[in-house]
Amino acid sequence: MKTSSELSPTSALDLEGLFNERRALIDGALDRLLPAEYVEPVSVHQAIRWSVFAGGKRFRPILLLTTGEAFGAHPEDLLATACAMEMIHTYSLIHDDLPSMDDDELRRGRPTCHIQYDEATAILAGDALQTLAFQTIAEESLLSPEKRVLLISELGRTAGTPGGMVAGQALDLEAESCAVTGEELERIHRLKTAALIIAAARCGAIIAEAPDPELDAVGKYAAQLGLLFQITDDLLDITATAETLGKTPGKDLQAQKATYPSLYGIEAAHQRAHLVHQEACAMLEQIERPTEHLRAIADFILRRKA
Amino acid sequence: MKTSSELSPTSALDLEGLFNERRALIDGALDRLLPAEYVEPVSVHQAIRWSVFAGGKRFRPILLLTTGEAFGAHPEDLLATACAMEMIHTYSLIHDDLPSMDDDELRRGRPTCHIQYDEATAILAGDALQTLAFQTIAEESLLSPEKRVLLISELGRTAGTPGGMVAGQALDLEAESCAVTGEELERIHRLKTAALIIAAARCGAIIAEAPDPELDAVGKYAAQLGLLFQITDDLLDITATAETLGKTPGKDLQAQKATYPSLYGIEAAHQRAHLVHQEACAMLEQIERPTEHLRAIADFILRRKA
Repeated sequence: MKTSSELSPTSALDLEGLFNERRALIDGALDRLLPAEYVEPVSVHQAIRWSVFAGGKRFRPILLLTTGEAFGAHPEDLLATACAMEMIHTYSLIHDDLPSMDDDELRRGRPTCHIQYDEATAILAGDALQTLAFQTIAEESLLSPEKRVLLISELGRTAGTPGGMVAGQALDLEAESCAVTGEELERIHRLKTAALIIAAARCGAIIAEAPDPELDAVGKYAAQLGLLFQITDDLLDITATAETLGKTPGKDLQAQKATYPSLYGIEAAHQRAHLVHQEACAMLEQIERPTEHLRAIADFILRRKA
Repeated sequence: MKTSSELSPTSALDLEGLFNERRALIDGALDRLLPAEYVEPVSVHQAIRWSVFAGGKRFRPILLLTTGEAFGAHPEDLLATACAMEMIHTYSLIHDDLPSMDDDELRRGRPTCHIQYDEATAILAGDALQTLAFQTIAEESLLSPEKRVLLISELGRTAGTPGGMVAGQALDLEAESCAVTGEELERIHRLKTAALIIAAARCGAIIAEAPDPELDAVGKYAAQLGLLFQITDDLLDITATAETLGKTPGKDLQAQKATYPSLYGIEAAHQRAHLVHQEACAMLEQIERPTEHLRAIADFILRRKA
């Protein structure tokens, strides 16, 4: 087995090709799973596709595919659940962007759903995407019913409340304009961002029938990955330009949102990112499988520019 | 077997007792399934409970229990799915009431969720209720995994788009201030209201393992029941007082919404209600089971005052 430190520049390049290939695979599957734009009600179907095909990085579904493959699952067994994960993620972005929530008009360089369409349509598009996520897994005939209910339970637990994404978003709103401690900030991010990233990795491992200790290890790897994702997100909000970011930078500061850099300063936030990256990689050592690609995902997030 | 026309006033009275008993059963189960109010984030958990325990009639879960029992299922096997149905229904009410949707400030005589809390919290409460609905079925250990995925698929299809509730709500919004035909109006209601009512009856029958022809018949009964529910709803909007209705009457007229009475007149709408009631009951004749309680539900909706 090749360890991550032996990765050559060539394999790194192949990895980018592999990511692009997977992104195409996921986009193709999403296109098949989502209602067509010309099907009535066209408003909500156009809004769904506007947001799903807005140039997202497909980070969560790629993580699911990569984890599942590391544990020996066939890509076709992973694809529907990977798409369900992206549907949940996209629904949360649509609702988070609404005027009464984060009030964002721009995402990935394009108008957000409620700006391009209207608020009611955006709410319904998000609602429908959540429904379709669970339906997609329930109807995935390549997986046993036992596995499907496990996946739906995992996704429900990590997308909802009190242990998941919605809880994190609610705590985040409650904390706005309040002084929060570093501990509270990590709790918010663990729920709001990391929960679904953990679910992505765990669902891949569940489909591959990974043994419990390794399922546990990959979940902990993903927890650190989620934290890393949030820290780099906060840093990019300060250091990136609108062009590379695809959204208005500096919004967190304006909204007086607690972020890693605002709590600890930019330099300490960078250091924290490196530490969390190391912790993520350390968890991979506990897995007796080729985990280079999972390691590469952690590297990629540490260095991301957008 | 006693036919519905033989129902004595005494059985009708028992029926009311039975409905109250079921309502208490459902409320108790919902209380156990929903996060407690003191669990963080308290905002969203209070909002969820505010809307779920707002004095709803529990029509959909009662229909699910009644259908399942008619086909011989044990009540305890039906209860979790019945609650999931009510969670989906409540989420849809919370989102429908939002300012960008129907903009309602009063429901069942109390402030709506976004009035009592705020808009962001109401959106999140609805989102979390939808998640919990699917999670509840996935984790219902009394049912086989095969049955759970069937139920989730049924609920997903009828709650989402293009064949379900969200599609109906989107078509309804598209049709506002437009001249719609009677045919278009029925299509909207079939999706917006009837789809979930059909799902309630079908899920009860699925849990009870009803044979396909009877599953089909009970679905058609529920389709007419849903239509009947909407017609009587439209009529009550005109004829009821705010006190009995628990919300502002005359809102449809004000919003220039197409309704049965606005399209056909009050008298013709009453006649249509009676016809649809007959059609619902006719479907029950095809079921070789004691269906008095299902018939009584149709009677109850035809005569409802709120």
